[in-house]
Amino acid sequence: MNMKLATFAFAAVLLAASAALCGAEKSIKLPPPDKTGGKPLMQCLTDRKSERKFDSRPLPAQILSNLFYAADGISRPDGRKTVPTARNLQSQDVYVAMADGLYLYNPKTHSLDLVKQGDIREKCGKQAIHKIAPVVLIYVGDVSKIGKNAAEKVFYAANHAGYASQNVYLYCASAGLSTVVCGLVDKPALEKAIGLPNTKRVQLTQPVAYPAK
Amino acid sequence: MNMKLATFAFAAVLLAASAALCGAEKSIKLPPPDKTGGKPLMQCLTDRKSERKFDSRPLPAQILSNLFYAADGISRPDGRKTVPTARNLQSQDVYVAMADGLYLYNPKTHSLDLVKQGDIREKCGKQAIHKIAPVVLIYVGDVSKIGKNAAEKVFYAANHAGYASQNVYLYCASAGLSTVVCGLVDKPALEKAIGLPNTKRVQLTQPVAYPAK
Repeated sequence: MNMKLATFAFAAVLLAASAALCGAEKSIKLPPPDKTGGKPLMQCLTDRKSERKFDSRPLPAQILSNLFYAADGISRPDGRKTVPTARNLQSQDVYVAMADGLYLYNPKTHSLDLVKQGDIREKCGKQAIHKIAPVVLIYVGDVSKIGKNAAEKVFYAANHAGYASQNVYLYCASAGLSTVVCGLVDKPALEKAIGLPNTKRVQLTQPVAYPAK
Repeated sequence: MNMKLATFAFAAVLLAASAALCGAEKSIKLPPPDKTGGKPLMQCLTDRKSERKFDSRPLPAQILSNLFYAADGISRPDGRKTVPTARNLQSQDVYVAMADGLYLYNPKTHSLDLVKQGDIREKCGKQAIHKIAPVVLIYVGDVSKIGKNAAEKVFYAANHAGYASQNVYLYCASAGLSTVVCGLVDKPALEKAIGLPNTKRVQLTQPVAYPAK
């Protein structure tokens, strides 16, 4: 082995080791979402349902792209989104727990940015289904931004999670995916697992998967 | 004028007088909703927006039918709906204020049942727009049915209003209608105007109209 080849081999080993150490990618750039297609709306409304039987197969990048566009995507040049928020304060974040790590959806770059490595899906609900679904969406409300009092903060954060998760329900109906919104979550434990400050509160989780065969 | 004709004329006058007294119809039976059509979902997500410029023209029966199917319609033989509710408790009602009266949407009969005569639209929000829109939806949560404590009751009722009003946003995007969700409402005053018991709480209102010309 000559010197150049040895250096190259060493670099390749280093690269592989570093990839293995990293595990999850730092940022997953999603392809552009489909902004015009899908099934007709009334059909999606008719087909919308809560379904808990999941397949563990990963979801392809295009489906993830459309899913996050539905949940929190920017649809207009002024930065407004597919989901409303009170006074357009955009006080909600959408996280996603996957087998390799926890990511935060970044609407501006349409990418999933790594928050931490490791699988926290089992903390996303008290049902075993969260460990089967390849992705679990986590709706987080920033209560420092919204509401004049405690009840209003609860109200608006819960309301915003409703808008976004209904979009995800309808997208799943359009794309033939299974999903269910889960409120039975140990929210303080999940907030700790994500590493949230106490102004940011978990609202609901929503596993998404192909239907069980 | 002979006796028969006089009797007939008298009966006709009585009927007209009674119709004038009644004003609003006791129950408006809606035509069957379109359960399969509309624009593609991703287009509706892209076009969804809050729009406050309304035309006062009435909405035709077919549009009302589709609108209430989106907001609270029964989509499946087991009585499940286009919108989810926690543990399927179906703890939300959708009222509608129109110029002639206040109605409650009945998903089982797909009709609007008169609650009271008279126009309460101006009580549905602190903006003048509520008086222009021909229909104003009012989302009401039955907090006796949901949540183990006060915060949970606020949470689930607000969340359910989010699901339903997002469906209405998307239906409006599909049908070319204008709508906006309003949280700036004197809720106790509106609850009194509707005549709600204190277990049923107004969550949000949502005027729907043709766009202003």
